[in-house]
Amino acid sequence: MVLQGLNAMRIRELGEFGVIERIARLLPGQAADVVVGIGDDVAVLRTSDQDYLLATCDIQVEQVHFVRSAITPYQLGRKVIAINVSDVAAMGGWPSWALVSLAMPPDTEVAFVDELYRGMVEQLQAAGAAIVGGNLSRIDGPMVIDLFLLGRCTANQLICRRGARPGDVLLVTGTLGDSRAGLELLLHPEWTVTEAARRQALAAHLMPQPRLLEGRVLAQTGRVTAMLDVSDGTLSDLNHICKASDVGAEIVLADLPTSPACQEVARVAAQDPTEWALTGGEDYQLLFTVDACNVERVQRELEAGTGTSGRVIGRMLAPELGMVLRYPDGSVRPPEGVVGWDHFQRKPSL
Amino acid sequence: MVLQGLNAMRIRELGEFGVIERIARLLPGQAADVVVGIGDDVAVLRTSDQDYLLATCDIQVEQVHFVRSAITPYQLGRKVIAINVSDVAAMGGWPSWALVSLAMPPDTEVAFVDELYRGMVEQLQAAGAAIVGGNLSRIDGPMVIDLFLLGRCTANQLICRRGARPGDVLLVTGTLGDSRAGLELLLHPEWTVTEAARRQALAAHLMPQPRLLEGRVLAQTGRVTAMLDVSDGTLSDLNHICKASDVGAEIVLADLPTSPACQEVARVAAQDPTEWALTGGEDYQLLFTVDACNVERVQRELEAGTGTSGRVIGRMLAPELGMVLRYPDGSVRPPEGVVGWDHFQRKPSL
Repeated sequence: MVLQGLNAMRIRELGEFGVIERIARLLPGQAADVVVGIGDDVAVLRTSDQDYLLATCDIQVEQVHFVRSAITPYQLGRKVIAINVSDVAAMGGWPSWALVSLAMPPDTEVAFVDELYRGMVEQLQAAGAAIVGGNLSRIDGPMVIDLFLLGRCTANQLICRRGARPGDVLLVTGTLGDSRAGLELLLHPEWTVTEAARRQALAAHLMPQPRLLEGRVLAQTGRVTAMLDVSDGTLSDLNHICKASDVGAEIVLADLPTSPACQEVARVAAQDPTEWALTGGEDYQLLFTVDACNVERVQRELEAGTGTSGRVIGRMLAPELGMVLRYPDGSVRPPEGVVGWDHFQRKPSL
Repeated sequence: MVLQGLNAMRIRELGEFGVIERIARLLPGQAADVVVGIGDDVAVLRTSDQDYLLATCDIQVEQVHFVRSAITPYQLGRKVIAINVSDVAAMGGWPSWALVSLAMPPDTEVAFVDELYRGMVEQLQAAGAAIVGGNLSRIDGPMVIDLFLLGRCTANQLICRRGARPGDVLLVTGTLGDSRAGLELLLHPEWTVTEAARRQALAAHLMPQPRLLEGRVLAQTGRVTAMLDVSDGTLSDLNHICKASDVGAEIVLADLPTSPACQEVARVAAQDPTEWALTGGEDYQLLFTVDACNVERVQRELEAGTGTSGRVIGRMLAPELGMVLRYPDGSVRPPEGVVGWDHFQRKPSL
């Protein structure tokens, strides 16, 4: 009876991560040639002793992930690639080959397809990768773009979610919240902000740049214990590291790096840019942990190798302490409310 | 002006293969590590000197490829895997790892997901492969299941579409038309056929079995010049071999192997089973070419290694002769009308 009750349940009730956990339990044990399997953003597969094969996919659904009125097909093509390249970058790998599955309504314009591919090809070329295959279908409904990206990494330089230890320092590349600022500008075109701020925020949202070189340099330091890209939101993604590594974490809110553009848009929106940095998502910055004694060295090598700064935003704790935020007034408490994006339980904001 | 006219064109007007050809022209030249790139069912990628990596994907869209009332989620799971395993089998490879992208309406039952995965896992296990990753999304529309399958093959045993030569003999494994017979039975449940015929035809349509072992044995003979699995339909798939190999072909209609079950259903339907064998599609038999002097040897090794027969159904011709059919009355003419399945130009029959 309990089982029957569960089977009649809808996936909306379980939520995205609930469904993933359930699927993971349905699968047989991991084979010997699978280094990292289901549950991570990227599968890591043993093809030789020196190199691992990386495989990731990301399905983009019209009305859920994008609306055609807000993004050009060229930008959409770039973004679809960037999202997946970012996942490979966060493992310390480099992308090689992509396959594209497209389900499109028959009245889609040929020009849309041309522009979508132009964007994909450009973003892939910038990452040193190429489209090698794919699949087309009609759909009588929203357009679906599913990208499969294959990459490689040096076996002894692989960085996963699961290596963080209590005491490790938490860092992030670049700034956070810009993508959310761009989304808010798309939702509120009437807001008055400087042209520079608008351009930067929209670019962050519509044409995010994966931190590919940064991921490589961080992997080569040999000192990064766990890494992830900020896609769902800093809090939600940090939660993935905590779960996989069995640790807690503290984020110092005052140390979250936000850009002047993000701050300006947030001011006009009468919102807190720190909130956007914490939960906005889609920033595609790298969130990573380093043993405390190696932090300065890693920051130096990252900056020297890429020009990108790695900012300390917190530290990892013992697992029983959970995930907490340190507020500017010195108080420390768990985050309230929703910590991430769940496709089945929340309506998309765009 | 011509370009503008083309850009305003809809993909329905270009058709599935027209869109693929257009996309192929948009892509930069093939990289050195890509052995077979876009346009084939499977990408072949060089990862070492001994082995190639195979990568294929297949997107299944509700209402286009399946309707939930006609197939159980367990059967659907098996079929999604079988289709992709069949593509890998047709290259002479073996599957290793799968990633699954799912876009589902939020009110999808959890039991549906459970059963879908049970089917996928069983069919993958039978092929020696495993699910290693994937991606979930909401969709407010038809369900979409996109499977990405990675396999491997021995570099010197790879079989592609492009190796057929004029004079080669054309063969096919098993029987053709059974899947179409099953589809017709689903569309016409009122038809009276024997229980055995119904069971066999429905199984062929709902739970096709990829010819994985057959593909391996054929590859190991070292005598197969081109190979493909029958997914779109024998004529359409043979056309792929002809185009890729720059050859013509003749099919001897009287030699197309059909099962007693297919013949029985066709009789009730007052249709020609040969027509179903020629254009029905989804049989997932292997269609392959062999130099004339090696035919008997290949047939013997196939039968000995797998118990499956390889039937001669025609021969390859000089390219200028095109694709022709030899009718039972001895006349030889090109096929008439539509030769395959095009997702954008034809309505699905189920």
